[in-house]
Amino acid sequence: MTLPFLFHSQTADGAQFDGQSLTVTLKTDSLNFDKVYLRHEPDNEEELVEMLETERQGRLKLWRVKFPINPDKAMTHYVFKVLVDQQQFWLDDRGIHKRMPSREYHFKFNSEHQPPTWVSEQVFYQVFPERFCNGKPEISVKTDEYRVKNNTRGVVAKHWGEAIDTEAGTGGSEFYGGDLYGVQSKLDYLQELGISTLYLNPIFESKSNHKYDTTDYMNVDPHFGTNAMFAELTADLHRRGMKVVLDAVFNHTSSEHPWFDRNGVTDNGAYHNTDSPYRDYYFFEDGSKNYSAWKGVQNLPVLNFNHQEVRDYIYQSDSAVIRHWLREPYNIDGWRFDVIHMLGEGEGATNNAHYVQAFRQAAKEENADTFVLGEHFFEASQWLQGDQEDGAMNYYGFAHPVRALLAKQDIAFDPIDINVQDFVTWLIEAKAKIPFSNQLTQLNQLDSHDTARFLTLLSCDEQKMKLAATLLFTYLGTPCLYYGTEVGMEGSHDPDNRRTFPWERAENLKSPWFVFYQKLIALRHERPSLQKGSIQTLHCSNTAWVYARQLDNEITLCVVNLSESEQALTVPLWQLGLNGGKADSLTEPHSIMYAGGNGCIQAKPNSVMLFSL
Amino acid sequence: MTLPFLFHSQTADGAQFDGQSLTVTLKTDSLNFDKVYLRHEPDNEEELVEMLETERQGRLKLWRVKFPINPDKAMTHYVFKVLVDQQQFWLDDRGIHKRMPSREYHFKFNSEHQPPTWVSEQVFYQVFPERFCNGKPEISVKTDEYRVKNNTRGVVAKHWGEAIDTEAGTGGSEFYGGDLYGVQSKLDYLQELGISTLYLNPIFESKSNHKYDTTDYMNVDPHFGTNAMFAELTADLHRRGMKVVLDAVFNHTSSEHPWFDRNGVTDNGAYHNTDSPYRDYYFFEDGSKNYSAWKGVQNLPVLNFNHQEVRDYIYQSDSAVIRHWLREPYNIDGWRFDVIHMLGEGEGATNNAHYVQAFRQAAKEENADTFVLGEHFFEASQWLQGDQEDGAMNYYGFAHPVRALLAKQDIAFDPIDINVQDFVTWLIEAKAKIPFSNQLTQLNQLDSHDTARFLTLLSCDEQKMKLAATLLFTYLGTPCLYYGTEVGMEGSHDPDNRRTFPWERAENLKSPWFVFYQKLIALRHERPSLQKGSIQTLHCSNTAWVYARQLDNEITLCVVNLSESEQALTVPLWQLGLNGGKADSLTEPHSIMYAGGNGCIQAKPNSVMLFSL
Repeated sequence: MTLPFLFHSQTADGAQFDGQSLTVTLKTDSLNFDKVYLRHEPDNEEELVEMLETERQGRLKLWRVKFPINPDKAMTHYVFKVLVDQQQFWLDDRGIHKRMPSREYHFKFNSEHQPPTWVSEQVFYQVFPERFCNGKPEISVKTDEYRVKNNTRGVVAKHWGEAIDTEAGTGGSEFYGGDLYGVQSKLDYLQELGISTLYLNPIFESKSNHKYDTTDYMNVDPHFGTNAMFAELTADLHRRGMKVVLDAVFNHTSSEHPWFDRNGVTDNGAYHNTDSPYRDYYFFEDGSKNYSAWKGVQNLPVLNFNHQEVRDYIYQSDSAVIRHWLREPYNIDGWRFDVIHMLGEGEGATNNAHYVQAFRQAAKEENADTFVLGEHFFEASQWLQGDQEDGAMNYYGFAHPVRALLAKQDIAFDPIDINVQDFVTWLIEAKAKIPFSNQLTQLNQLDSHDTARFLTLLSCDEQKMKLAATLLFTYLGTPCLYYGTEVGMEGSHDPDNRRTFPWERAENLKSPWFVFYQKLIALRHERPSLQKGSIQTLHCSNTAWVYARQLDNEITLCVVNLSESEQALTVPLWQLGLNGGKADSLTEPHSIMYAGGNGCIQAKPNSVMLFSL
Repeated sequence: MTLPFLFHSQTADGAQFDGQSLTVTLKTDSLNFDKVYLRHEPDNEEELVEMLETERQGRLKLWRVKFPINPDKAMTHYVFKVLVDQQQFWLDDRGIHKRMPSREYHFKFNSEHQPPTWVSEQVFYQVFPERFCNGKPEISVKTDEYRVKNNTRGVVAKHWGEAIDTEAGTGGSEFYGGDLYGVQSKLDYLQELGISTLYLNPIFESKSNHKYDTTDYMNVDPHFGTNAMFAELTADLHRRGMKVVLDAVFNHTSSEHPWFDRNGVTDNGAYHNTDSPYRDYYFFEDGSKNYSAWKGVQNLPVLNFNHQEVRDYIYQSDSAVIRHWLREPYNIDGWRFDVIHMLGEGEGATNNAHYVQAFRQAAKEENADTFVLGEHFFEASQWLQGDQEDGAMNYYGFAHPVRALLAKQDIAFDPIDINVQDFVTWLIEAKAKIPFSNQLTQLNQLDSHDTARFLTLLSCDEQKMKLAATLLFTYLGTPCLYYGTEVGMEGSHDPDNRRTFPWERAENLKSPWFVFYQKLIALRHERPSLQKGSIQTLHCSNTAWVYARQLDNEITLCVVNLSESEQALTVPLWQLGLNGGKADSLTEPHSIMYAGGNGCIQAKPNSVMLFSL
């Protein structure tokens, strides 16, 4: 037999929690099922609970059951089992299976740890401050004003718009003058675009342009602004209803941080003085000048969290960095923790989970609505079960698969060849390993300061870029635009992906890219189904994917056609509980013809069509 | 393009550990690969290490690399990535993929925790002592000798061979007189069969026939024997080079255990006396007679491991139960921990992992070669990463899939319909989640005291039973025969699966079933490739599976044909590094024709053919 239709949404109408029990709804087609069960694991042992048919919705049957969440742990796992026609079928968070699915893909509900609800309502915008806008030229770095990288190279001041030196390996030492005054001056612009939350790359004192080598966690870099100015900026953002997330670089400091003091500016630094009070802030070989550095990069000595003073400074004491910036007068709304999986005690990342949990706890103690965001280039499922991070920079479950599908390149620049079916399997497997509420607060990006700009990866194929952007704003997770994407900025990998913002392109806000993104962003804000809705695949082939995002009665239908030619797709809209009805195109004028519960869609080549059903 | 051939074995010739680094070998076909990488995760971050071609083996290329194991945790994960013809392919412990595979399926090596090497060399035999052999009738339970189940029912003594009362729900109260003297009297018989290790269902004092409701952990039940007699039995076993594993029922006691004393025999029991020194051994509602019981079964009150005296008694003190029986004069070789996943503190299984680790530690402190075996009816991957159990009763990764494939029934007695391809995917996914050394010490069974006998599930289809048994003795993991299987015992589910052993059938050791099992067991003992070899799938379809077990130069080829007709299978034997050569049939006289690196095999219907290559 063909697979029966089974679907479960973990949105409020599909899974309701009363503090002790979950009431869950399973949607099926109208077959005569012999039994319909929910399977959960109180005390780690299987329990099958029979579900009762409670309702019809078009051609669908709705089944419900109420069951207690696990008493012994925050997380409850559950799946569905149905018996029909001498066979059994199971539904997990990927889809339908002929046997009990692997446990990591079961539906998950974490009763103790939920991400803040505001996150998935946002459209994020990532600003690399040194390259976004120069608002106060008098504080810009001047050529040879100081030296970086352990005194080997003087800084270079360049003109806004001048090409980045990608050959000489000048890395962090080229400066264009972007600052926080510049950010503040562009808030009207960002709001016009529809941006609601800023994620700022590091802003604390550091000698590089990227500032991932902190020299002082308690002060904004003087070339970016002042603490007082930053307080003003956050107040301004909050007055506008906007939010801000800062970059937390706690795995390592700069080797020029006074604690380490590689240059020997004081007598007190850990590098030159084995009796330094800061010696145990880092990992030194006994009595030696050899120390652990991030990926062996010598100007990034790794912090030792097995030392109480480091713990106190970063998260544990009342004045700790994590707490400080979450308080008045700054009140930032979240932290993005740099390479958080690498952090711990000694070589490797010993006791990493303990520290991530502790960071979370400190942040949530200051403000329960703090967004705890982790940076992970690869699979982050283990940090995303609720008790550690609210969300990750979703390279693994969004950026990498989109890059593979459309740019045919992986993150190591190696060729990769997958079709739409492979792509969808990848997305769905990745999301299914974490609780639904965390799926919504994964931070999806097409690119960032650490990857080539997506338009460049696509060799400026505008059609494919639009397709990718539409995925970004309609797929599960919170979208984040890397600065300048909205004016079609290009750039190869680091450092070329950090070009200065070409403000001349933004003078006319009616430019095609800007209007395109403005419209997508508006759609995202207008449609709660895109922010918090379930995702349901209605059709998937090697070249096409049709998915619906649904919240309450709002349905957004997304029709992806990756082939070079138009495709006539027959889509089982009855699986949404619909039986005909209106289908308003949200993109260009298209229409859906209904026929017996199915919708017939002429899908345009190389594009995503959106409908409101 | 078609998938390239990639294979990695974690046997000693494929993965060598020198205490700090692993040297691993990847076998590929002879394509012109652009790059061959090993990917591992020092400090949780991806590292790609290039592999070098070091050798040819027939049509195969061998690639090698040495890399350090993770410094921060016992477990090291790794996978392989190859680039060829503008595409990438990955190899994990399931097989080949077009993208980076999900982390739980990466190859795993636990440098701190390894199961004992003796386990996979064994053929286990599970004895349900009350039904195996009556060696001393004078200690047999007599009708109405005592009452069970809180005094509601008298015990019933029945004649050996008399039918079990499956209707009346007499459950644990029927006795046939089997005892440890009986076990001892049959050791010659078991050795003749080829058995090398006994797993005994509980033998400690208890009023039921199954003894999962212990009343005294320190004494052998007087109807089974004495402690002294048990010491003699284990000495006898060890003299014979045999080993013994006992059942550890620590999640709950009997409600008639003196600590609980539901019948009020003393003034001191936890049930009647809220001031009892044993009150906190269990979970009572404050001041009430309500208590936690295993799955609500009132005569099985759950032990509270959040109480120091319980911890001391079971594992922590010098005289703890776990330690006691591992020492002189008993020297048992392993513990099989009953429902170990359910055990912990309070409702549910709070801190379960902590206690499983503590049980392991206590057992290994007494004897580092102790086999720590867990009972789990469902997925047990989380207990099998090395630091908890050495192996599990492998229902999830063996018994259930075989039952689904051949008996078309799942463990809840529901119909299930899978083909050979589904079956193999299930087996391989299950094994791939745990380290290879633990894959070898999973205890594979077709049936047990908790399931219907497999022959009965198959409606006595002898051909399918032979097929299943051949899988049992040739698949990855340690085989265990449930008593009497070797003489074709039948029986439906509990209690009918616990019939008395029909010794009249064993009088002639040349009976067809006995000879069949004797031969399979001998093969298992003779062929290290079956005990500790890698597993490599060479062919898989909806009806056929060809796999090779390989250790050093010994290869056992297993050809499974589940269809009703003979199939001509073309098997790429070149993937084993072979180019022709001899193929000795280990079963009936069959032969393999070589043609261009492939073997052509006429696979008989409904059977498994075995070859030595």
